Amino acid sequence: MDAFPVTYGVPVDDLTASRAPSKVTLVDIARLAGVGVGTASRALSNAKNVAPATRARVLRVAEEHNYVVSPEASRLAKGNTGRVALVVPHLSRWFFGSVVEGLDSVLREAELDVLLYQVGDARDRRDFFDRLPARRKVDAVVVVGFQVEDDERTRMETMGVHIVAAGGQSAAYPSVHIDDYEASRQAVDHLLHLGHTRIGMLEAVDPDQPNLSATRSPAYYDALERAGIPADPTLVVTAPWGGEHGAASMGRLLGHAEPPTAVFAHSDEVALGAIRTLRRAGLRPGDDVSVVGIDDHPMAELTDLTTVRQRPVEQGVIAGRLVLDLLGGGVAPQASTTLPTELVVRGSTAPPLRR
Amino acid sequence: MDAFPVTYGVPVDDLTASRAPSKVTLVDIARLAGVGVGTASRALSNAKNVAPATRARVLRVAEEHNYVVSPEASRLAKGNTGRVALVVPHLSRWFFGSVVEGLDSVLREAELDVLLYQVGDARDRRDFFDRLPARRKVDAVVVVGFQVEDDERTRMETMGVHIVAAGGQSAAYPSVHIDDYEASRQAVDHLLHLGHTRIGMLEAVDPDQPNLSATRSPAYYDALERAGIPADPTLVVTAPWGGEHGAASMGRLLGHAEPPTAVFAHSDEVALGAIRTLRRAGLRPGDDVSVVGIDDHPMAELTDLTTVRQRPVEQGVIAGRLVLDLLGGGVAPQASTTLPTELVVRGSTAPPLRR
Repeated sequence: MDAFPVTYGVPVDDLTASRAPSKVTLVDIARLAGVGVGTASRALSNAKNVAPATRARVLRVAEEHNYVVSPEASRLAKGNTGRVALVVPHLSRWFFGSVVEGLDSVLREAELDVLLYQVGDARDRRDFFDRLPARRKVDAVVVVGFQVEDDERTRMETMGVHIVAAGGQSAAYPSVHIDDYEASRQAVDHLLHLGHTRIGMLEAVDPDQPNLSATRSPAYYDALERAGIPADPTLVVTAPWGGEHGAASMGRLLGHAEPPTAVFAHSDEVALGAIRTLRRAGLRPGDDVSVVGIDDHPMAELTDLTTVRQRPVEQGVIAGRLVLDLLGGGVAPQASTTLPTELVVRGSTAPPLRR
Repeated sequence: MDAFPVTYGVPVDDLTASRAPSKVTLVDIARLAGVGVGTASRALSNAKNVAPATRARVLRVAEEHNYVVSPEASRLAKGNTGRVALVVPHLSRWFFGSVVEGLDSVLREAELDVLLYQVGDARDRRDFFDRLPARRKVDAVVVVGFQVEDDERTRMETMGVHIVAAGGQSAAYPSVHIDDYEASRQAVDHLLHLGHTRIGMLEAVDPDQPNLSATRSPAYYDALERAGIPADPTLVVTAPWGGEHGAASMGRLLGHAEPPTAVFAHSDEVALGAIRTLRRAGLRPGDDVSVVGIDDHPMAELTDLTTVRQRPVEQGVIAGRLVLDLLGGGVAPQASTTLPTELVVRGSTAPPLRR
């Protein structure tokens, strides 16, 4: 597997330099001055909201290292274009919007321009990577929740464009993600610990994110096996991602001759659809049938849904920092961060009823 | 009130022109060829996914009007920079993410670069407008869900930067929005038509969007008055925006000596918080206490919440078209679009119980 070039500092052009050329980047100045990249940038650009002592320290460090305090040089020090592309399938969905929120906060703080590319499906993505080389508009591409194909990745590398993944794992470029297997184990073990033995699964298949179900489903089977409970394939319903499908799948489980007493849903949206079906059938979530999801979508708190929490804003923040490190030349390209998930117990799960 | 300059076509620079200079824009070519701006752009840039007949028609129109078929000229024809800034308070929230989704689809289709600026609070916004002039990086700014101050607007005008509002109304620049008074009337009249006479209001105050509650609350009082029902101030609870506050406010109403039989919430999130409180109190939404919100958040469908639907993706699409029209020089600056809202009846509302 090819590595990215680790050094990426661009020499300051003599035309814009007011002092001798330098390879010191804004990230270096920030580190040496003991401040954040955003603060260093604001101090150098004479912005208002920086304490005088901090500004003085940053300026002293910049002077010592011949860092050029011109906007143009500052831009160059950050890469060729000062721009980063965020490539996102669905902005209106909580997970993606939250990751972008985290990314934007870090990248904008570092004075980088954030270009938004919404790519709804695989064809859009292919189109994005097909057309980018003709323009070379960005220093880095952050893909949110999907994988970059090998040929696309090779092309980006050739162009010197960094790739970072947020909300998805890759061995070929830096990424930030959760452990989907572990999150699913937490959910299913919770149902087992409550005493459930007849546990259904609402398996959600998303053609745009095939890795999710491919990782979450095995955790369900493994947890049952560890508990000595034979898996019953008739308790697993596979459907596309989304709440309406969760509602329909729950209906199928209720039509079972011996319905499950608890259900593991691949996401909170799927779980909330299932709960709507339970309520329409006159059943109480938790009391009659337990339901657990994955995400901790803001609506989980509002609907008393037990879930396994992930924090997509934090995934975006960390991915943003990876981008800054890459542009500053100071990170191993295979750097990968796995963020922890945690079980959040609410009213939708309870021990099984003694009937 | 000052108007924007209506003409904004930038003459194609001789340095990039392969034929005589022209003031025809991409938008003109698209209209004359009877295709969308995105299709015209793709045809001119020789992209793959355009039917041969369409491409031929676009090229013929472009030739007839001396439209310069070079990428650089195409960029100039769309404005000085080919960039549009989206300024958004909260990307992780459904409403804002959806508006941005709609905006991005139209602007990117027209080959414009979309720059994302997340501005969490009033200070961030002030900072955005303070710093933009020093850079003049964009041809237009789209503000999502908030107002631009008069001095900021004047500065943008001086710089020739267009302003468009999505999800918020203004008399000073083009905007796309719903009629918040009418949406609230639809919600409250629905409760009145069901036979409720004791109707509470969960009034949500958002310091970033003061116009919302200032418009939605009067509709409640007016509807009650038209129905001949005296307003009872003890049935109105005012709290910050958000589901947790809705939950707490509903608790206060349940503690009333004579609780309401129905509640109008200023948004779906507030309504869902209220419903959680009802369920925890052993009350059934709809059967025991009716709840109606505003939005048609995706979770409303999943939780059987009656609501008044708005369509934020559509608001974004129309705002995006306004931007294209402004850059093409063909729109009255005060153009304003009010999108209709509609009542969606689900299980959370029903006639009052005869006790």
